[in-house]
Amino acid sequence: MLSRRSLLGAAGAAYAANPKIDAALTRPVVRRELLKEPVLIQSIELLKSGKHFFVRVRSTNGIEGFADAHSSVMASAYPILLKRVAPSFLKKDARDVEVLLRHVYLAQSNYKWQGLPYWVSVAVVEIAILDMLGKAANQPLGALFGKVIRKTIPVYRASGNRGNSPEAEIEYLQKLVGETGATAIKYRLGARMEYNDASTKRDLALLPLTRKTFGAGMSIYADANGSYDVPMAIRIGRLMEEQKFAFFEEPVPFDYYDETKQIADALKIPIALGEEEMSLRGFRRIIESGTAQVIQPDLLYFGGLIRSIKVARMSEAAGLDCTPHMSGGGLGFLYIAHFASVVPNVGAHQEYKGDDDNLPVSCATSSLKSEKGMLTVPAGPGLGVELDPTLLRNATPIAV
Amino acid sequence: MLSRRSLLGAAGAAYAANPKIDAALTRPVVRRELLKEPVLIQSIELLKSGKHFFVRVRSTNGIEGFADAHSSVMASAYPILLKRVAPSFLKKDARDVEVLLRHVYLAQSNYKWQGLPYWVSVAVVEIAILDMLGKAANQPLGALFGKVIRKTIPVYRASGNRGNSPEAEIEYLQKLVGETGATAIKYRLGARMEYNDASTKRDLALLPLTRKTFGAGMSIYADANGSYDVPMAIRIGRLMEEQKFAFFEEPVPFDYYDETKQIADALKIPIALGEEEMSLRGFRRIIESGTAQVIQPDLLYFGGLIRSIKVARMSEAAGLDCTPHMSGGGLGFLYIAHFASVVPNVGAHQEYKGDDDNLPVSCATSSLKSEKGMLTVPAGPGLGVELDPTLLRNATPIAV
Repeated sequence: MLSRRSLLGAAGAAYAANPKIDAALTRPVVRRELLKEPVLIQSIELLKSGKHFFVRVRSTNGIEGFADAHSSVMASAYPILLKRVAPSFLKKDARDVEVLLRHVYLAQSNYKWQGLPYWVSVAVVEIAILDMLGKAANQPLGALFGKVIRKTIPVYRASGNRGNSPEAEIEYLQKLVGETGATAIKYRLGARMEYNDASTKRDLALLPLTRKTFGAGMSIYADANGSYDVPMAIRIGRLMEEQKFAFFEEPVPFDYYDETKQIADALKIPIALGEEEMSLRGFRRIIESGTAQVIQPDLLYFGGLIRSIKVARMSEAAGLDCTPHMSGGGLGFLYIAHFASVVPNVGAHQEYKGDDDNLPVSCATSSLKSEKGMLTVPAGPGLGVELDPTLLRNATPIAV
Repeated sequence: MLSRRSLLGAAGAAYAANPKIDAALTRPVVRRELLKEPVLIQSIELLKSGKHFFVRVRSTNGIEGFADAHSSVMASAYPILLKRVAPSFLKKDARDVEVLLRHVYLAQSNYKWQGLPYWVSVAVVEIAILDMLGKAANQPLGALFGKVIRKTIPVYRASGNRGNSPEAEIEYLQKLVGETGATAIKYRLGARMEYNDASTKRDLALLPLTRKTFGAGMSIYADANGSYDVPMAIRIGRLMEEQKFAFFEEPVPFDYYDETKQIADALKIPIALGEEEMSLRGFRRIIESGTAQVIQPDLLYFGGLIRSIKVARMSEAAGLDCTPHMSGGGLGFLYIAHFASVVPNVGAHQEYKGDDDNLPVSCATSSLKSEKGMLTVPAGPGLGVELDPTLLRNATPIAV
């Protein structure tokens, strides 16, 4: 047998774990000391009202929590939430939520199901539990994890367009900025998991035009959604550097880790990655290997705030920002606001979607809107918002 | 900014793709030349009969194909199959199935859903389509991919036990071998994603006892299901080497790639990995980096035969065996038989489950049983089996 190291000439350096990252992973995330009494989970319901899915949890002593359940995902994921995720949390003490996340991962061999529909199911159950715990502790959600260090959050607006003309895209970005006062924008490059002559022509025109239009004071991010190969990514990245862009997201397909690292090594602009990363260990590898410099767990796709805070702490140990990705509409912006209220290394701006698809809620302590580019984090207990009574009246439980 | 390479002292070698692997990925998998006329997909149904889920496809010219739909997975995955997977194949020419796999990956941003329930849904639709194509071409399924090189397949039997006494496990393994004549066995070590004093005591007793009981002629595999850390994996691996075991599966959690490579570098026994690998690129990385030496895509979890053949070809280019993992009961053994009929580097034995949960089928060309440790590959067109008429009579379509 050949020596395995020489077999393929592949990267042969031995792996040595970063001890700072070990330490970051060891620290508990939930401040259990805020809750003196057990909060036993009596029920977990997945409810649908109109087009909205949401989760409601209730404790045996009558405290409720809820979470927007990412309706577009839940439309295909509901049996996973109901059969593989919720049962693992029932009758348990919600204060142990961090331990319960380990239990549900092992239950029914769910670790084999690691992926978007499983983790979104876990995330929305977790967030409803955290909302309930916040109410039990009379603390905003962020305070469950540590000292709240931000009461307002600078936001960025992202465009979902691709294939329109550079001029039309500029007009759309101006509209987004006008509505929100955002001091940062993000837009899409390439042709989604591929590029072609038309997309390259658009990319090359847009990069200087956005800087020229919005001036030096605007933070500009661009997301290639895995469209490029290494040479094109380096070419586009150099142009971004000339135009002083702030990060370059997913230059090549998300699971092309080695190529992403090659691009990161060749460029100065930070590479952002993480939306499709489903494994805590995978994030560790991205961070330790220097594959990306802005770490982007999606709070829902990745399984909730607790797991994402572990990623943020690993990123912090490596001197990197952890800026969450925001999927879909719903109340994702609110989860990000609470995350950013307590995580030091979230980066300069957080994504805000002014989506009409939001679950209807009211809030006494925040407009829930971007005002002059800032979103006020709700200060009330838990998520700090109240569900619309009409939504609740029309809600029916989903069963499988 | 610090140099990224020096930032964490992590593995710094630049990635260089193996050109043989590039070539292995470029070759088409399906022999389209066998089918002169279009085979247009008119319908794709997910049916349930008793506890069994199965897929039935029909072409516009009346050819049918079916696949066992991995009932225990499908119980939670059916909306994904019906809403996110099947629509992408409808009205298309089944001869383009290889291209359609790329289309469904991009459709509805399904690449973000990469994971077990998505890939099982793709796999069972693909296998039903391949069964239909085999009937259209009047060829057994394996022949759709190349020259059939094996008509009988040596099998191994795997025990699913853990936590029983070494003596009870030996008795159980003897029963499995007695029933099937298998010349290879696999059993479980550790405590499933962890180990403890009791599991280590059992492991240390079982390893020599199996060899002593079954003698030098038995191929013995062991699966730790991610139970160990690096030092314990090396300790157990050395004992396996002494006892001349044939492979050591998942010594540490499946997504601990760097640690798995450390173990592979320290041991001579081949390390087997792949059951939870969901990305073609992920397999490429495992193969190119020397992380594992026996490559184990699960034909269903990984999204079907075509994708798994690409993994086998990458493995072959690196001089490695690709021995599929077999999940659950159902007709998985039949899919593996067809895979092994045509893939040269499948390794010495394939898993066979003598499960009573099998979808009831009949076969004119094979007993579908292990006889003296060999399973005969059905020689009829497609999968080469007929569904039980009672099953079909009782079948009702699932809708969402």
